[in-house]
Amino acid sequence: MNILLWLAYKGTDYAGFQVQPNGVTVCETLQNAMEAVLGCRPDVKGCSRTDAGVHARRFALNFHYDGRVPAEKLVPALNAHLPPAIRVLEARPAAEAFHARYAAHAKTYRYYLLNARVDDPFTFDTCHRVAGHLDEAAMQAAADALVGRHDFLALCASGSSAAAHGDTVRTITACTVQRRGDRVCITVTADGYLYNMVRILAGTLVQVGLGKLSAGDIPGILASRDRRRAGPTLPAKGLVLENVLYEEETNS
Amino acid sequence: MNILLWLAYKGTDYAGFQVQPNGVTVCETLQNAMEAVLGCRPDVKGCSRTDAGVHARRFALNFHYDGRVPAEKLVPALNAHLPPAIRVLEARPAAEAFHARYAAHAKTYRYYLLNARVDDPFTFDTCHRVAGHLDEAAMQAAADALVGRHDFLALCASGSSAAAHGDTVRTITACTVQRRGDRVCITVTADGYLYNMVRILAGTLVQVGLGKLSAGDIPGILASRDRRRAGPTLPAKGLVLENVLYEEETNS
Repeated sequence: MNILLWLAYKGTDYAGFQVQPNGVTVCETLQNAMEAVLGCRPDVKGCSRTDAGVHARRFALNFHYDGRVPAEKLVPALNAHLPPAIRVLEARPAAEAFHARYAAHAKTYRYYLLNARVDDPFTFDTCHRVAGHLDEAAMQAAADALVGRHDFLALCASGSSAAAHGDTVRTITACTVQRRGDRVCITVTADGYLYNMVRILAGTLVQVGLGKLSAGDIPGILASRDRRRAGPTLPAKGLVLENVLYEEETNS
Repeated sequence: MNILLWLAYKGTDYAGFQVQPNGVTVCETLQNAMEAVLGCRPDVKGCSRTDAGVHARRFALNFHYDGRVPAEKLVPALNAHLPPAIRVLEARPAAEAFHARYAAHAKTYRYYLLNARVDDPFTFDTCHRVAGHLDEAAMQAAADALVGRHDFLALCASGSSAAAHGDTVRTITACTVQRRGDRVCITVTADGYLYNMVRILAGTLVQVGLGKLSAGDIPGILASRDRRRAGPTLPAKGLVLENVLYEEETNS
């Protein structure tokens, strides 16, 4: 039986989703809970490898198992074996061939900014603070210039495998900047992302918000394919994977 | 020089505000920062003793010092010596006789509920989850019945000194219940509070929200002056001191 599982997690204390040698990951923590509940340790296919410190409000993954524990019992059973920073939101049977990574046709990320002179103790782990005033209208104009099918090599961390293979064209279908009081958030939906792309995109929009770059600079930055022309990579802690979009036929 | 300082803090890892033998408190952590910045350890008068695990979005305190470090420099200097869970928001000179506790004529607390079947990793430390559906209109009707000058002994933890002294009349000037999606919050403003009063008040409104008590029961519960008639004491983690109100003459 192939199961689609939706997770939410606060990534502060994890070395990302994917199992890796240094640091505890979300995936191995989940596999420990699976072992306790299912008596086996399924191979987990995550929708994405989130970096250390990045969070997820809706992260999808799938795994195959013998179905001994019914899908509807998985949510409370796994949550009973997981720390509060990781919660299973939903579990349901998926088509046998469904793969959480390959079937995803778009993902939405949000970068959370606090535009204030003092940090907020309640969102310190989930927001990046910018002290200088951010002009959110200028940021939205720059965001508009990023929407579409482009070569995003300028917004890609150097040394990525996609860059080495010349596979750096992606399509951003939506990019919005919203302010509510001293909170500014950048929401991006794309068919795929290059390494650190959202954190560099957010860093570039912040430069625009501070008046150090303008919306008119964006096309030239993209055309340059030069990482040094874009803004800085903002910290992982402000980044949240908000949702993953699948076709309807995801269902079994 | 008498200084009024406004703090925000996430109380999860603190044994309340006030210095006490078991566990690290917000006050002693602040005094350590003061010692580093001012070279002395001022006596701090907090507006309230919040319990272990309770949070504050605006907590007022005052202290006297020689004025060697100007008030406007205190905010960045103290924050540089404080952990992220405690932030100084504002520091300004106050009238010499101003006392943060005695001068407070009202305080606003908010109790945060998550009305959902699964916890939220992002607000696990600052929300209490209730799985059963909460009827917020019924809760508001019960909240309305609490507004006014009443003997709140039924909403006071047993063994409190106010109860022992028969000093249990307080005035609630506003009590509102608001839902936004799966978040429900209860906001109370009163001239003073008995021990655990907001947590018991919230527990009583939750019983109403679940249909186990009704708004019509509230006058009888208050008149009984019997703690056992009210709802349970909800966990400290959902409670936030939102603001403290002072008269204008607070200013020097």
